[in-house]
Amino acid sequence: MPQPKYARESMTVMTEMVLPNDTNTLNNLMGGRLLHFMDIAAAIAAQKHSNRIVVTASVDNVSFAEPIKLGNIVTMKAQVTRAFSSSMEVFIEVWAEDIPAGVRVSTNSAFYTFVAVDQSGRPIEVPAVIPETDEEKARYESALRRRQLRLVLAGRMNAQDAKELREYLRVE
Amino acid sequence: MPQPKYARESMTVMTEMVLPNDTNTLNNLMGGRLLHFMDIAAAIAAQKHSNRIVVTASVDNVSFAEPIKLGNIVTMKAQVTRAFSSSMEVFIEVWAEDIPAGVRVSTNSAFYTFVAVDQSGRPIEVPAVIPETDEEKARYESALRRRQLRLVLAGRMNAQDAKELREYLRVE
Amino acid sequence: MPQPKYARESMTVMTEMVLPNDTNTLNNLMGGRLLHFMDIAAAIAAQKHSNRIVVTASVDNVSFAEPIKLGNIVTMKAQVTRAFSSSMEVFIEVWAEDIPAGVRVSTNSAFYTFVAVDQSGRPIEVPAVIPETDEEKARYESALRRRQLRLVLAGRMNAQDAKELREYLRVE
Amino acid sequence: MPQPKYARESMTVMTEMVLPNDTNTLNNLMGGRLLHFMDIAAAIAAQKHSNRIVVTASVDNVSFAEPIKLGNIVTMKAQVTRAFSSSMEVFIEVWAEDIPAGVRVSTNSAFYTFVAVDQSGRPIEVPAVIPETDEEKARYESALRRRQLRLVLAGRMNAQDAKELREYLRVE
Amino acid sequence: MPQPKYARESMTVMTEMVLPNDTNTLNNLMGGRLLHFMDIAAAIAAQKHSNRIVVTASVDNVSFAEPIKLGNIVTMKAQVTRAFSSSMEVFIEVWAEDIPAGVRVSTNSAFYTFVAVDQSGRPIEVPAVIPETDEEKARYESALRRRQLRLVLAGRMNAQDAKELREYLRVE
Amino acid sequence: MPQPKYARESMTVMTEMVLPNDTNTLNNLMGGRLLHFMDIAAAIAAQKHSNRIVVTASVDNVSFAEPIKLGNIVTMKAQVTRAFSSSMEVFIEVWAEDIPAGVRVSTNSAFYTFVAVDQSGRPIEVPAVIPETDEEKARYESALRRRQLRLVLAGRMNAQDAKELREYLRVE
Repeated sequence: MPQPKYARESMTVMTEMVLPNDTNTLNNLMGGRLLHFMDIAAAIAAQKHSNRIVVTASVDNVSFAEPIKLGNIVTMKAQVTRAFSSSMEVFIEVWAEDIPAGVRVSTNSAFYTFVAVDQSGRPIEVPAVIPETDEEKARYESALRRRQLRLVLAGRMNAQDAKELREYLRVE
Repeated sequence: MPQPKYARESMTVMTEMVLPNDTNTLNNLMGGRLLHFMDIAAAIAAQKHSNRIVVTASVDNVSFAEPIKLGNIVTMKAQVTRAFSSSMEVFIEVWAEDIPAGVRVSTNSAFYTFVAVDQSGRPIEVPAVIPETDEEKARYESALRRRQLRLVLAGRMNAQDAKELREYLRVE
Repeated sequence: MPQPKYARESMTVMTEMVLPNDTNTLNNLMGGRLLHFMDIAAAIAAQKHSNRIVVTASVDNVSFAEPIKLGNIVTMKAQVTRAFSSSMEVFIEVWAEDIPAGVRVSTNSAFYTFVAVDQSGRPIEVPAVIPETDEEKARYESALRRRQLRLVLAGRMNAQDAKELREYLRVE
Repeated sequence: MPQPKYARESMTVMTEMVLPNDTNTLNNLMGGRLLHFMDIAAAIAAQKHSNRIVVTASVDNVSFAEPIKLGNIVTMKAQVTRAFSSSMEVFIEVWAEDIPAGVRVSTNSAFYTFVAVDQSGRPIEVPAVIPETDEEKARYESALRRRQLRLVLAGRMNAQDAKELREYLRVE
Repeated sequence: MPQPKYARESMTVMTEMVLPNDTNTLNNLMGGRLLHFMDIAAAIAAQKHSNRIVVTASVDNVSFAEPIKLGNIVTMKAQVTRAFSSSMEVFIEVWAEDIPAGVRVSTNSAFYTFVAVDQSGRPIEVPAVIPETDEEKARYESALRRRQLRLVLAGRMNAQDAKELREYLRVE
Repeated sequence: MPQPKYARESMTVMTEMVLPNDTNTLNNLMGGRLLHFMDIAAAIAAQKHSNRIVVTASVDNVSFAEPIKLGNIVTMKAQVTRAFSSSMEVFIEVWAEDIPAGVRVSTNSAFYTFVAVDQSGRPIEVPAVIPETDEEKARYESALRRRQLRLVLAGRMNAQDAKELREYLRVE
């Protein structure tokens, strides 16, 4: 079994400039294009943690609260939160900057899940994650209930058995 | 208030061929690229329902179970399920075909939410949705609990108040 | 020899949103980009009919009567009309919609021809086409004179021998 | 009325390297992508002749005889053949080179037609073309029957009135 | 005159995954594509320093010593070294990683120069740079002779007057 | 050793239309995108001279004096100036045209260096270059001092030994 690694070792920063083809008729970044950027940033973080080829297994609910304009700079920070056998959950935060206007806003965050695979595409075990900061520890803990939600939504777990999810939703 | 419209009036079929730049080093379609395709298909369905410019508000949990190969044909069917004032939930189903091999598999489904806006980007009311088939009616009903889940996850609704979500999770 | 197939079995619907990089300085879709979209839609129809890899053999005269604006939705319907040994003629119709404006116009139609090939690129026989509707039957019949025109224009048939073409041009 | 110009003044050479995203699963340039390249080369020639914004009006029958491989260099030569009021016919020849293999083949030729427009998209008169070489003169003459064929195919001219086309097809 | 800013305030990290369309027939990243990535990373650093729209004024000699493979992760770090009135010199370092192979190599470094402009494209003064670390101070000092070399190569300065450049080349 | 070839045999003309995604927020071609175009044009010239796969080894200082607008036509002429064992220096000149406005300006010139390689990526000898015109002879001669400058800047040659460079800078 591979050696555990610190969460911070997978830290990935990715920067993109919003180009015309990324925008809709209001000149705002299209949501799907941002999901594409985030997937690449998160995949690199998962690669760094596992030193493996990785494939996207799922993305959790993502909300788009702030429009991001043509010419803005999009910065993404991605870091692995927790590993489950061959899968890794990655947390991504997104900021958009209109640098000439001196405006920088937090626009999104999301959790993507990746599976590490070998050259034939078969799942392969990855290192455990060691969280250090309070934030890393909190995301490590809550990874369990997000995993249960994914399994319940995919019909692969009974809601009755999703203990951490039920506690979080304070349904008991 | 605009006239209600049938769910089927927003039906959109989109087809894409997987090109080299859409793939990872295993020659499979990258998850983020598929999320991008799905966002465009769903946005067109939301445009058809509202006859408005639309912006992506959120995407719900999406799982990627099946690899989609280079050269495969990806078919997406998108249709509005329900409207809430200025927002619309869209259901998208995805199939991948390796036509020379005669293989067609269902690979994904997802719910995207869009907001209709005017030329200044301000939200504007959209028609109600009239479901007709059993499937359309089931998705119309369940739209409520998916909306509650989005609001709870975004910290904008208390889980105690998410009546339909709690019933669905059979937590009472 | 492969089993004949119905024309409708190859029916392919493809939808594209006109993005900035697809447009000229008048913000209209460039003709060459539309020819590229149409080629992909038609190739998928030919793949569906033959269950083979296909390569473009020719495109017939295409006229561009209507400008298609940035942000418009382009819908293409493609269907095989007739097969000749290893080649297939595909009919493609194109519509453009400015959905917020509620305008949908028929903009183009074209005939593309494809050849089915094996993995080494050698031509391989395809199923015959069975037309059912009146339109399908009419296009099946007229495929012969379009084929003669292609051969005459390519210098591979003598105009004297192009019987159906000459009748169509009422030159006798 | 603008001053006539020599055909050679519109001569345009365009070179493209075939990149992975331009190719199908046999690693050959897709026909639609080549039509897109040719449209841009021909549009530049029409711009040079008219010093106007131009829009594609039509493309005549194009055959694809030779596969063009990934990494090949595609060279296009485009030149205006004749002008009719606000429209211009452009002749394009295409060569493909596998330079390391020392192989260069003529792969295609085509006629595209463009209309010169003002800033509002209204057609505007263009200079007449003065052919000089024998080839230019031959293409200048035959432009008439190609124009008749386009009009007959578009249903805008009666085949009985297409004098030059009928003579060419030796149907009298 | 704007307030001086620290060099580190412009620090920009950009990450790209090498996709098929970025590569040549040896499956290595093309030099021109890397120059394009570096230009964007450096432009963002210059934007951060000046809070202005910036345009590329020049790039200094760049050598490409190491091939970068398809699927590799390219990381760029860019930081402003010194400002001269309306222009800024930016230093960019590039690393390539084959993460599954656990290999990370330093591949390139370069100096790009940008000019800050207003909305009409007219040059506008930028803050002076305050270097703090030894490396920042060394690059601040040597910026002078690189500027002289640019001016001499552009024929806008006499080599006799390029005092720092001549000392560096030890020609006295 | 391969037969020497004339400089003019490698002459390559490449034309590009500036599309929206190539431009910054001032609607001008981004410098990095132009460097990418130039790299491809120069690589084709080096391929023609050597009949080999070539990889970019370096680009010399490039200045961007003139903005190039969206919709402009960029023309590049590239030609090998001199060969050194397995490497070739290529000279590229760039013009931008706003054809409807009747304006054509010389915008750039640059020297790129390429190495010819075999299928395994190993350097391989290329033909010597025979210059014919006065310009070709001048560029052939000055190639030596540009090579010295590259080596000095890369720390691979002592400035004391760069005889031609020192003479050029009139430092003796």
